[in-house]
Parts: sequence; C-alpha cells; structure tokens
Amino acid sequence: MAKQEDVFKKVISHAKEYGFIFPSSEIYDGLSAVYDYGQNGAELKNNLKQYWWKAMVQLNENIVGLDSAILMHPTIWKASGHVDAFNDPLIDNKDSKKRFRADVLVEDFCAKLEDKAQKEIDKAAKRFGDAFDKNEFETTNTRVVEYRARQKTILERLAKSLTEENLADVKSLIEELEIADPDTGSKNWTDVRQFNLMFGTKLGASADSATDLYLRPETAQGIFVNFANVQKTSRHKLPFGIAQIGKAFRNEIVARQFIFRMREFEQMEMQYFVPPGTELEFYEAWKEKRMNWHLALGLGEENYKFHDHEKLAHYANAAADIEFKFPFGFKELEGIHSRTDFDLSAHEKHSGRKLQYFDPERNENYVPYVVETSIGLDRLFLAVFSTSLKEEVLEDGTERTVLSLPPALAPVKAAILPLMKKDGMPELAEKIFNDLKYDFNIIMEDKDSIGKRYRRQDAIGTPFCITIDQDSVQDFTVTIRDRDTMKQERVPMENLRKIIDEKVSFRSLLRKV
Amino acid sequence: MAKQEDVFKKVISHAKEYGFIFPSSEIYDGLSAVYDYGQNGAELKNNLKQYWWKAMVQLNENIVGLDSAILMHPTIWKASGHVDAFNDPLIDNKDSKKRFRADVLVEDFCAKLEDKAQKEIDKAAKRFGDAFDKNEFETTNTRVVEYRARQKTILERLAKSLTEENLADVKSLIEELEIADPDTGSKNWTDVRQFNLMFGTKLGASADSATDLYLRPETAQGIFVNFANVQKTSRHKLPFGIAQIGKAFRNEIVARQFIFRMREFEQMEMQYFVPPGTELEFYEAWKEKRMNWHLALGLGEENYKFHDHEKLAHYANAAADIEFKFPFGFKELEGIHSRTDFDLSAHEKHSGRKLQYFDPERNENYVPYVVETSIGLDRLFLAVFSTSLKEEVLEDGTERTVLSLPPALAPVKAAILPLMKKDGMPELAEKIFNDLKYDFNIIMEDKDSIGKRYRRQDAIGTPFCITIDQDSVQDFTVTIRDRDTMKQERVPMENLRKIIDEKVSFRSLLRKV
Repeated sequence: MAKQEDVFKKVISHAKEYGFIFPSSEIYDGLSAVYDYGQNGAELKNNLKQYWWKAMVQLNENIVGLDSAILMHPTIWKASGHVDAFNDPLIDNKDSKKRFRADVLVEDFCAKLEDKAQKEIDKAAKRFGDAFDKNEFETTNTRVVEYRARQKTILERLAKSLTEENLADVKSLIEELEIADPDTGSKNWTDVRQFNLMFGTKLGASADSATDLYLRPETAQGIFVNFANVQKTSRHKLPFGIAQIGKAFRNEIVARQFIFRMREFEQMEMQYFVPPGTELEFYEAWKEKRMNWHLALGLGEENYKFHDHEKLAHYANAAADIEFKFPFGFKELEGIHSRTDFDLSAHEKHSGRKLQYFDPERNENYVPYVVETSIGLDRLFLAVFSTSLKEEVLEDGTERTVLSLPPALAPVKAAILPLMKKDGMPELAEKIFNDLKYDFNIIMEDKDSIGKRYRRQDAIGTPFCITIDQDSVQDFTVTIRDRDTMKQERVPMENLRKIIDEKVSFRSLLRKV
Repeated sequence: MAKQEDVFKKVISHAKEYGFIFPSSEIYDGLSAVYDYGQNGAELKNNLKQYWWKAMVQLNENIVGLDSAILMHPTIWKASGHVDAFNDPLIDNKDSKKRFRADVLVEDFCAKLEDKAQKEIDKAAKRFGDAFDKNEFETTNTRVVEYRARQKTILERLAKSLTEENLADVKSLIEELEIADPDTGSKNWTDVRQFNLMFGTKLGASADSATDLYLRPETAQGIFVNFANVQKTSRHKLPFGIAQIGKAFRNEIVARQFIFRMREFEQMEMQYFVPPGTELEFYEAWKEKRMNWHLALGLGEENYKFHDHEKLAHYANAAADIEFKFPFGFKELEGIHSRTDFDLSAHEKHSGRKLQYFDPERNENYVPYVVETSIGLDRLFLAVFSTSLKEEVLEDGTERTVLSLPPALAPVKAAILPLMKKDGMPELAEKIFNDLKYDFNIIMEDKDSIGKRYRRQDAIGTPFCITIDQDSVQDFTVTIRDRDTMKQERVPMENLRKIIDEKVSFRSLLRKV
C-alpha cells in the first residue's frame, strides 16, 4: 500500500518536473482538480488523440468524425436526463462550513475498517513460526472477518439508500457511524441534498431573460443531436459510427487522484448506430475491438480487465468497463455501453423532430439502437504515463529513470546532440535537424554532458538520441542510441529518416489494432 | 454587393449540405452563434490545426506546445484587465425588451447612409452618355459628399464617446439620429451600459461560497501563467515561444457572419518571449513569417493584406492584423501584437510570484517582453473554405462545383470507386482500401454512377478518385483522377501510395513556410 502511494507520488512529480502536467493556475495557488498539459504533455496527449482518431475514423470505412460545440441547447440536458438525474448526494458540516460527498464519507469510513483489517493481517503474517498458535490466529481471523462483515453491511445499506433516493437514511448512517469532519472533528451535519454536477452559465442575449446554459458533461449528446445531419450528408447506411474528441465538464465535489478525476476533462467517444435487435452482437464486437486497441500499446495484458456492470444505467441494456491497473489500483479507463434507442428517442420526444432511419433491407423506418465506446483521454494519459515510468538499475549499478512510452506516442521522436560546440558539429547537427524536422518532432540539445543529455531524453521518453561527433563531420555517420536497449550504433546520416520512421510511425501501431 | 451576399449564402449552404458545418443543436432550433463541425469539417479543422502546430512547434527549435485548461483562477482575469475592461456598450429597447450593441446600432445607421450614397452612384453610372449633364452630375455628387461627410462626423463622435467612456453621449447620439429598434420601430431606449463579455460559471466547492469562475475569453493567459514552469522544465533560453490551440468563449451580443464571430471559438496563439528592447525586431520578423505561412496555402496573394493598428491596446507597443478577403470583405484573420511586459508584470503583481528570466549574456534578471501571434481557427477555416469553393463551367458546357482545398488540408485524400458491384471489383477495392488506410484518410464509394461520385468528391475537395474497373481485376492497374485537372491516368496499383503521398503530405506545404 505504501509502495503504491510512493509510485503515484513519483508519477506526479515526474510529470511536473519534465513538463508533462502542471497544476492549473499554479502561480495563483492552483485551481482544484484542474490541470494544464506542459510542452511534453501536450505532445503526448495529441499523439493519444491521433492514435484513437486514426484507429476509429481512418481505419473504419463506416465511422466518421465530428467536432460539436461545448455549448448546446439546454433542453438537450433535459432530454438526456442530466438535469434531473446527474447528481451527487452532498452534506455540509455546520461548524466547518465545508461540503462533502455523503457517500464518500461513508466509503472512507469503510476504507478505514479495511485498513484495520489489513493491519491485523500484516501483524499476524510476521508471527508465522513456532510461537504462533492457533488461538492467536483465531483471534486475528475473527477480527478480520468482523471488520469485513461490517463494511459489507454498511456499503449495502448505503447502496440501497442511494438507489431509493432515501437521503434521510444516508444522513442517519453518517450519524450512527459517528463520522466526523476529517479536519475539525465536528459531527454537526446538515441534511443530505442532491447537487447537480453540471456547470451552469448564462447566454446574455436579451434584456429580460438570459438563457441558462450548461457546459456539456459528456460529448455523447453532441453526436446524438447531429445524427440526422451526419447520416444524411455522409449517406452512410447502418451500421455506422460517429466519433468525437472533446472537452467535458463536471462540477465534482470530491475530485482526486491527479488527472484521473478532473472538473475539466477530455473524452473520446464513438456512437455506433445499429438496427434494433443487433445491438448486443455489436456490443460484444466493440468490447473486443476496444480491448485490442489498448493491448496494441504494449503496456502489458495483465494491466487490463473487463468489468461487466451488474446494475445498469437507465439507458443501457448491457455495459462493461475496461479497467486498468493505475498506481492506485484497477479503475475504469473506458466504458462500452449498449445504450438502446434511449437517447435518440428522448431527443425525438423533446425536439419534436424525427430521428429515424429508413432501412432499405428491412423496408421500414426505425430509431437506431446505439453502442457507445467512451474513453477518458486524461485517464488514458495517466495509464500510459504511469506504466511507462520505470526506474532501472543498470549493469554498472547506477540507476536511470526511463519513460518507455510506445514510440509512436513519444512527445519527441529524436534528440540531436552535437558532442561539442565546435569543429563543425553544431552546423552538422543543424543540417540534420533541418532535414528531419518536416517528418518528425525532434529537438536539439547542446547543453550539459552527453550522459546527462541521454538521461534527460530517457526521462521524457525520446526513442532515439543522435550524437554528432568529430568523425561525423568527416564521414557523415552518426551514432544513434536506442532509449530502451541503450545500445548505440554508427549509421550513415542518410539512413536516419528510415530508422526513425520504422519505429515511431503510427502505421506499426495501427497494424496491431 | 448582391453578388457577395450570394457567394456567402452558397458557402453556408454548401458547408451544411456536404457535412462541413451544421448549426449547433439544430433539432432544437439552434443555439445562436454556435456551430458544430460535421464529418468533413472536423477533418479539415484538424488538418488546419496540424498545419499550424507543425509549422510553429515542429519546425522551430525554440517553440514548444502547451495545452492549458479553459477554467482558470479568477484573479487571472483581474490581472489581464478582462474583468474591468472587456466590455461591450449595450442598450435595451424598453418596448421590445431586446438588447443591442449601442455602437453597432450607430454603425448600422452609417452603413445605411453609405447604401444611399451607393444607390446615387449606381443610378448616375447608368446615365453616362449624351443625356447626362453637368448639373445632374453635380446634384448627385453633392449628395454623395454629404452622405459620406455625415457618416464621418457620426463615427468620429462615436469613437470619441467610447474612448472617453461617455456612455450618456452614445445614448444621445442614438436619440439624435432617431435610431429605432429594427424589428418594432420603437425609439424607447434605456441608458447605455457596459456589459462584460466573459461567460461566468460557479465552482461549487464549499458550503457558504461557490467560487466565481470565467470561461477563458482568450488562450493567451494560459500561456503567460505557465511561462515560468515551461521555461524551467524546457530549459529554453530567450528568445523562445509557447504555442497553444484551444477553445475560448465570448458572450457576444451581436454575433454574425456565420463562423466568423462565434460565442464559442478556437484560437491558435503563440507567445514569443524576448529580451526587452528587441521586441520590435521580432515583431517585424513574425509579421513576415506569419504572412508567409498563409501564402504557402496558395489561396492567392491578393486575398491578404496587413492592417497596422494606429490606436494601440493598453498592453501593446505595436500591432498589426493580417486581413483576408472574406465573402463579406477584408476582415481580420490573424493578429500580431507586441504586448510588452504588460501581462507577465501584471501576473507578478497579482500573484506575488516572480515571473522573471535570468539572462546569462546580459547577466541580469528581467521580465521578458512578448510578441504574440493570434489566429482565429474558425476564421481560418472560413477563409480556406470560402476561397476554395468554385463553380466551374466545363468544356462541354456543364457546370461543376469543386472545393479546391490545398491537398494536405482535404478531409479525404482519396476515394476508392469500384465501377460495378461485381466481377471482383468490390474485393479489389477493399484490398486497396485496406492497403492505403494506414497512411491516409480515404473512403470507399460504391453508390451511384461514376460521374455523380466524381462530382460528390469534387464537392468535398478530395484530391484523388481511384476507379477500379474490369481491367483492374486482370492487370492490377487503376485509373486515378485529379480533382483539379479532372485528368485520368492509368497507373499500377503499387504506385498509388507514392502518387497520393507526394501531393497530400504536409511536407510539401511545410517546405514553403
């Protein structure tokens, strides 16, 4: 447990130190749960977008892209259910004036019970041996069983109360468990109330009434309301999909775990429109396809697992998550949902427009069914970044930190390192830079010792370092160093483009999808 | 004049009909001044972003990217001057309850005077000949001179009142000119008031006070507040630049001209940090570089001109626009501004943090000066789209509509067209598609006659059409048709990748920058 936390801290500090992720508005002491992507983070994020977009839109004949606006007509969120049902149960402490998610207070209480159980286990584990008798074991085991049974009872009651929207019982639970404000210890709580997670804003268009708008809490609805326009103008027959990458906003009260849960985040969503009755077949197919897309990154099969939803959202008839092993455990990375005709039908009803498709084979009109794949781009970033960050002990006993990103995703594809700032080396480096820069994002580094420069490039995940030395100026050969093997090879300058391209192009990644 | 309007209408309808731009939330009757990019628009927009990003970040050793959040600490907008000075003068009509921009009401009044002058001129122009005498000419000319003198007087008074923030006089002007609500004819006006253009929202983090936030009205401040973090972690010496692409929001009251002025729009901004005293030299250099970037697109040199600002914003010591000839005349496309140390110094003052740079050559600390290049992505889209849209009369007298986009920007690079759905043609088409799809965004079209399919690809700007016929199945050759020349050439299948790549890669475009 302590180790996981250390790993996560290292991830966060490395992300900042090497220009991947900065806290937003940091010079103003930050804005909670909002982050900025630095010079290397912006490139990595763009590459992740490209990998998804190419795999979804470019490789599939029948999937097209879309880029709809963040501001949308407010009735859309009525139709989608977000105005009425996109809430968190909140409770305020009357003394500290602080606001908490009521369910998280209870969950945190249970996490503490689990910590206690774990401590008993750890203590007992150290006792195995001659002096460890059966009675001692039984005492420990009884305690562990009790701690876990209590957690189960509490969490079941919480789930029941939330499902039944019995907020009074959530408050009773908090009072019975004697949960206190973690900072002040006060147990003086208000009632539990529902709090809508959408950010509101006003479009000031007329004198007497500004229009109340919301910042979209998901990109999916932008696809649904454009379904008819895209279908008509693209002339695609069913099944076909619409893919979109874009920002969404949720006014989370408890936003934790770095970029895992942010108030402003980015989604990559694809809605696949299919004939009614065929949706579960496509749902299974997309589960498999999306898992393959993740596996192609080569982060390790053991880091992924499916989690099929037992309890389904009101719009779904099947749903699963692809979970990833983050530094804080397995958590949702992508969702695949069979959304039925819920959304299109709701928009038909609220807009008064037909959102139907004429199926020439069935010779009938119907509202299509939808299978959605929805991935959190920032979570994907965190998954790739945290898994790639490694501390290696080298043969000579020294350590190096290396970010072994999939080469196609690396922010910088190659660094050009003139060994010295003299004897024509900078000029040759410049020439190579100018020759390669049209094809790859490369950088030039002439500061510090060559060893330090290698380490620095390892730390930002640059697949290749190209060193220009005195021989280079004579025979136009350079050494090219591989990030992962650290092997150096002397090659003719004119081979560089091909060597780099073979490793870093999206082509090789996409062929695995 | 009428012709310009027709051209613009054609642009808007073509954009919708071919999946480039849809009105946002159209099934809910739209959301004013917000638009969605359809399947072809999303690709074109992405390609424009890539062209800018590659030219700015990838080609320049000393420019790095950034992707900062839309939500920022509210004090940032105090420091930047947006809270106090980012206003429009508004006036409400008491009868219709409608809100107008007071300055636009006056400008529209002047535009009508110019229309009258133009009508006199048009009428007189038709009279040239024997029956057109000097007296008649003089009467007309006197009227034109009067109309124009009146406009000048009015606009000068408006400019003076706005500069002095004398809003009472703006109201007097509206009353003296007897300007009426264009819909109802009512002249019953409220006072003129300043209205802040930022969209507000609330971050609900604590019980007693939610934090008031703004949706950023420009991306530039996200760069300024990250200056120290990026400089430190990238280790760039001055001069160096930070580039960013992202959404910004302005609660415009009069938002017109399609995607030219929207409430939600996208900017591509680069801030170049330089030693004090050198800024004007870099300002001139960036003016030239940015113009070259535009010219490389090949839309015609005659469509661009510089407009040097005479009156400078409070933060600038030099500023110019690159204006483009839109369907509604020359208007700002990009701004190049020498912003001095205004922003960094303001953030130093408001945040209490040092935003300085230690210059090893000068051996001193200072706040860098900034040269900014700021382009409206949606305006750029409109510039490229409207200029590329052409109606051509062919040799046989028929017409075709062609979108002659720069090939690197085209949404679809090639369309694969099996002539018939039999005799192995669909299978061969599929094979070619699967072979090329890893490198290019291509589509397959098997519906309709080949002529219709060509026209359809012309209309979305696809540089190449590849037709598979009966011979193709035998000898593995295909015909490839060029969008612009409409010439068809028979080529071996294995040459396709090279032929397409040579024309559509960003490389050729970037080499012209």
